[in-house]
Amino acid sequence: MINSHEIIALPTRAMGEQDADYAVAFAVPVNTPGIKYIFSRQTNDSRRLDSPLDAGNPKYAIVGGEAVIIFKNVFVPWERVFMAGEYDFCGALVETFAGYHRSNYGGCKVGLADVVIGASHWVADAHGVAGASHIVDKLTEMIGMAETCWSCSLACSYEGSKTPSGAYVIDGLLANVTKLNITRLVYEWMRIAQDIAGGKIITLPSEKDINHPEVGRIIAECFRGKEGVDVNDIFKMLRLVENMSVGAGLPEAMHGAGSPAAQKIMIARRSGIERKRELAETICGIRKDEDFEKIVGKPEEEYWKETKAKIESKKAKIC
Amino acid sequence: MINSHEIIALPTRAMGEQDADYAVAFAVPVNTPGIKYIFSRQTNDSRRLDSPLDAGNPKYAIVGGEAVIIFKNVFVPWERVFMAGEYDFCGALVETFAGYHRSNYGGCKVGLADVVIGASHWVADAHGVAGASHIVDKLTEMIGMAETCWSCSLACSYEGSKTPSGAYVIDGLLANVTKLNITRLVYEWMRIAQDIAGGKIITLPSEKDINHPEVGRIIAECFRGKEGVDVNDIFKMLRLVENMSVGAGLPEAMHGAGSPAAQKIMIARRSGIERKRELAETICGIRKDEDFEKIVGKPEEEYWKETKAKIESKKAKIC
Amino acid sequence: MINSHEIIALPTRAMGEQDADYAVAFAVPVNTPGIKYIFSRQTNDSRRLDSPLDAGNPKYAIVGGEAVIIFKNVFVPWERVFMAGEYDFCGALVETFAGYHRSNYGGCKVGLADVVIGASHWVADAHGVAGASHIVDKLTEMIGMAETCWSCSLACSYEGSKTPSGAYVIDGLLANVTKLNITRLVYEWMRIAQDIAGGKIITLPSEKDINHPEVGRIIAECFRGKEGVDVNDIFKMLRLVENMSVGAGLPEAMHGAGSPAAQKIMIARRSGIERKRELAETICGIRKDEDFEKIVGKPEEEYWKETKAKIESKKAKIC
Amino acid sequence: MINSHEIIALPTRAMGEQDADYAVAFAVPVNTPGIKYIFSRQTNDSRRLDSPLDAGNPKYAIVGGEAVIIFKNVFVPWERVFMAGEYDFCGALVETFAGYHRSNYGGCKVGLADVVIGASHWVADAHGVAGASHIVDKLTEMIGMAETCWSCSLACSYEGSKTPSGAYVIDGLLANVTKLNITRLVYEWMRIAQDIAGGKIITLPSEKDINHPEVGRIIAECFRGKEGVDVNDIFKMLRLVENMSVGAGLPEAMHGAGSPAAQKIMIARRSGIERKRELAETICGIRKDEDFEKIVGKPEEEYWKETKAKIESKKAKIC
Repeated sequence: MINSHEIIALPTRAMGEQDADYAVAFAVPVNTPGIKYIFSRQTNDSRRLDSPLDAGNPKYAIVGGEAVIIFKNVFVPWERVFMAGEYDFCGALVETFAGYHRSNYGGCKVGLADVVIGASHWVADAHGVAGASHIVDKLTEMIGMAETCWSCSLACSYEGSKTPSGAYVIDGLLANVTKLNITRLVYEWMRIAQDIAGGKIITLPSEKDINHPEVGRIIAECFRGKEGVDVNDIFKMLRLVENMSVGAGLPEAMHGAGSPAAQKIMIARRSGIERKRELAETICGIRKDEDFEKIVGKPEEEYWKETKAKIESKKAKIC
Repeated sequence: MINSHEIIALPTRAMGEQDADYAVAFAVPVNTPGIKYIFSRQTNDSRRLDSPLDAGNPKYAIVGGEAVIIFKNVFVPWERVFMAGEYDFCGALVETFAGYHRSNYGGCKVGLADVVIGASHWVADAHGVAGASHIVDKLTEMIGMAETCWSCSLACSYEGSKTPSGAYVIDGLLANVTKLNITRLVYEWMRIAQDIAGGKIITLPSEKDINHPEVGRIIAECFRGKEGVDVNDIFKMLRLVENMSVGAGLPEAMHGAGSPAAQKIMIARRSGIERKRELAETICGIRKDEDFEKIVGKPEEEYWKETKAKIESKKAKIC
Repeated sequence: MINSHEIIALPTRAMGEQDADYAVAFAVPVNTPGIKYIFSRQTNDSRRLDSPLDAGNPKYAIVGGEAVIIFKNVFVPWERVFMAGEYDFCGALVETFAGYHRSNYGGCKVGLADVVIGASHWVADAHGVAGASHIVDKLTEMIGMAETCWSCSLACSYEGSKTPSGAYVIDGLLANVTKLNITRLVYEWMRIAQDIAGGKIITLPSEKDINHPEVGRIIAECFRGKEGVDVNDIFKMLRLVENMSVGAGLPEAMHGAGSPAAQKIMIARRSGIERKRELAETICGIRKDEDFEKIVGKPEEEYWKETKAKIESKKAKIC
Repeated sequence: MINSHEIIALPTRAMGEQDADYAVAFAVPVNTPGIKYIFSRQTNDSRRLDSPLDAGNPKYAIVGGEAVIIFKNVFVPWERVFMAGEYDFCGALVETFAGYHRSNYGGCKVGLADVVIGASHWVADAHGVAGASHIVDKLTEMIGMAETCWSCSLACSYEGSKTPSGAYVIDGLLANVTKLNITRLVYEWMRIAQDIAGGKIITLPSEKDINHPEVGRIIAECFRGKEGVDVNDIFKMLRLVENMSVGAGLPEAMHGAGSPAAQKIMIARRSGIERKRELAETICGIRKDEDFEKIVGKPEEEYWKETKAKIESKKAKIC
């Protein structure tokens, strides 16, 4: 919120009549009087202020964070109120909004994956092991997972459909599949990033020590990579991997746009299980195959009778 | 091949000058004189002929199978020869063909997944446990995996591009990601299908025993499900799950269109790792951010200097 | 049962008063009059009779199988009746028996894993790729999984305890953990076995074709491995991998000694969650640490007060 | 090191003649003149000093950390020198030491797992969802993974063997299997801990805000759990989960006692693959079964000939 211009407040779950007072949706500028932001603590938050190197992500780390938002006597102009008591629309609103947000995760987090994959390759290369078979394999696994999530996000949008209003909505089933994958695979690729980066990400001293004339020289000696690589670049890249792989980005990948349990409920609900049952029933012969005659040109029973006769006659010849 | 009208023969790997005699591609009808098919043995192949029930997939099981194909003095008309010695095109041809084939797997195998998911739900339901939380969770995992592969396949096509000839090619990176997922997830969802189906898939007797007047009655008693479900339908559905979850479809998901090791090589090769390295270098400050000034409107150094000054002044106020 | 001398019949779940008639346990020879065995169909069962090679496991495949067992007017001598209506002991009996059986799985299935790992290495070696990095990695993963299950089984026994009768019982929590791992990892190592074996396991023709003078010669040419390896040995080893990786052994690993859902219930029940909660409460400071003063020699509050004072004084010096 | 009394310095890899000067092992007190410790930065290190609550692990967090250790003109008494140039023993020394250390991980990290499992249950319970099926399932998975690692560690010790000196060594293969599991499963159970704890672990404000009279009241309202649970206890437990799941403990689980690639090399080397190949060869009939006649009482060929004759005669009767 701290980095935004506007707040859009929405219900976060389906509601009943007794919840009507909370069935509200509206937009206000973030600096509207009456709104309080209580900034949260997050992984390595205070370290961001220590020094650019120690921050890990020297340019952008300083600006992140979540906030608890309190509304107290906030005036919202009527034209910016989108819902005021229509509790029976809350479910649909949440599902639609969450669908978009869940779909986005395969773009957002995969962008971060690209950076951490690049950083992992860089660190391996700086130590002369980018060609080692286990490093290549680990990077390939990271890429495979990232592109899988990216594919899910793409499919969500491409399979989207036009609503009567003219707006498009993403595919609701695939959006939840995207996010469920993200809640697992982000952790997995960050784990591999830590594998490739090596123990140095937890033994690297602070920038103050690195800048110390005597101590810094020793650290530089201990952390140097292959010929021709500036050890200061190694420091920066190790901190970037640390920053990305331990940070609040992981629980955010878990719970942003709803927790995995919510995604599973939606997947179960939108999976079209009835149609899948029909397919199974048709194939195992419990249900009549309505399309058979249309496609094959003769009734199913007749066709299979003939086929079996042919098989029997061949069988006789083989044995 | 046995079920096809035409053979299209292709090289299966990149070739050098010494392989020129094998750098051939052509098409012939399957019944062209001089071609021999040696039919392979596959899981439960002979059982397919025992009885429709025992076959598992009573209608379609009988027609599957792989064949070793031998060409001996086969005449191929010149207009059906697509490559004759141009060995330096073999790599590109294999990669293109394999790309299409690998992309397809997210359609083909997910179609089978839909059937086995439907069958699993049916079996759980027939035993009155379709609503048990662990069953719902397992079905949801199956659906999540299947839709993930489906998304990969969709993304391959949607991200395809037009070639100078006017034909479209799938996205080569995503095609290999699709197939790599298939080589793992098919096994996983079939494992869950066996979990849900229960021990009955390996204790169900043969159709002959089921049709025996005395023995059949006992079997029916042992295998019955919840009130109202015909035990004969349970027999059929159990056999379908067995058929799909143990069959040749699994190693086919592994090795069809190339083995996983081949997909990994292609993923590594097409991942654009250089661009990912640049992103990491830019973010951690090793590389100048070329776009910064364009986007933000002032040189990067100046911007960050100002930002840090602001932070320092706030910090002073906080402490 | 078909391969055994005696049947020991047991209840398979906890029972109540209304189930008293079924709360029976007893032992009888397998050929006791009145017992009927209805043999089940299993993967590739009829193929076992076709030829030793096609059987896959040429010596031992023929003797496996499950059977539905029917008791009808079977006389059981009173001295071989172990339970007759004591329904309130059923739960404990099932749990104890299942515990032993679940513990065994880390021995039984890991023995099979050793064979399939050896076979996989053999096949890779016969094709000259046993040293390829991805093959080494896959074999190492198989070994890691197998030894994990073996460790679980060992720990079950080593952590066993003496009962008042003098008999020893395995550790009940670890037994269920062993079996839960087996229900997943067997499928995973068999998947890798199919990965390493390659497409040949589904394209290998029947022994009849292999023994045919003309066709056999062509097959031998198509399936040969590296210099010096007898192609007949390749046939045998491919069939062994096929036999072990598609067979009834997989659903048996899933459901034998109870299905995974049963193991999960037992793990949750025996996990000692209360003690784990206490540990967390003590560490985060909600609960008084009873052992602190005993170990450290002064009250906890006093100790931490002193420690914090020391830190503050150092902090002052650092800044 | 900072928390220890003595340093034991060891070689960290196999060495050759040219490395003889580095083939040294010795022990000295940590405060021996000439030793410098450069303390490393780790996740949330400076936050540990902010306040007990913000530290996450209010009592013990303050004392952790790694250090780069520099030896410069350090006097080591000869009786505390264990190796001085015997480079050809480095490999064996490293392998033995690493074996013990790797084996320990199934104790050390599983102790932490017990705490984080307890904390996860506590948080779920404090919000009234400890009985939700997906929570029970997730906790059971955490327990299953932790007990698996614990079993590996137990098996390492129980399978240890006595050396000529009278000391015992752990089982070298299982030690590496233990550590390889830890490099993966610690990340997995910490991921689940974050799943169960919910988004609150990244939105919880600082202790300063919590202690603020007005703001603190609002935070308490936002973070309260079910009736009867003190919100201050919720704050503490959330911070404990955060502390344990993002901290340096994860890369430490990855790289301590050697990185996963090192464990894989050892597993491959100690797996006894030759014996596994022999088993496969014996079973598929390539290799003569040396034990058969001893066990069965007649030569193998004779036995199988008789068995097959029996089967043929039965087959004739069945058909």
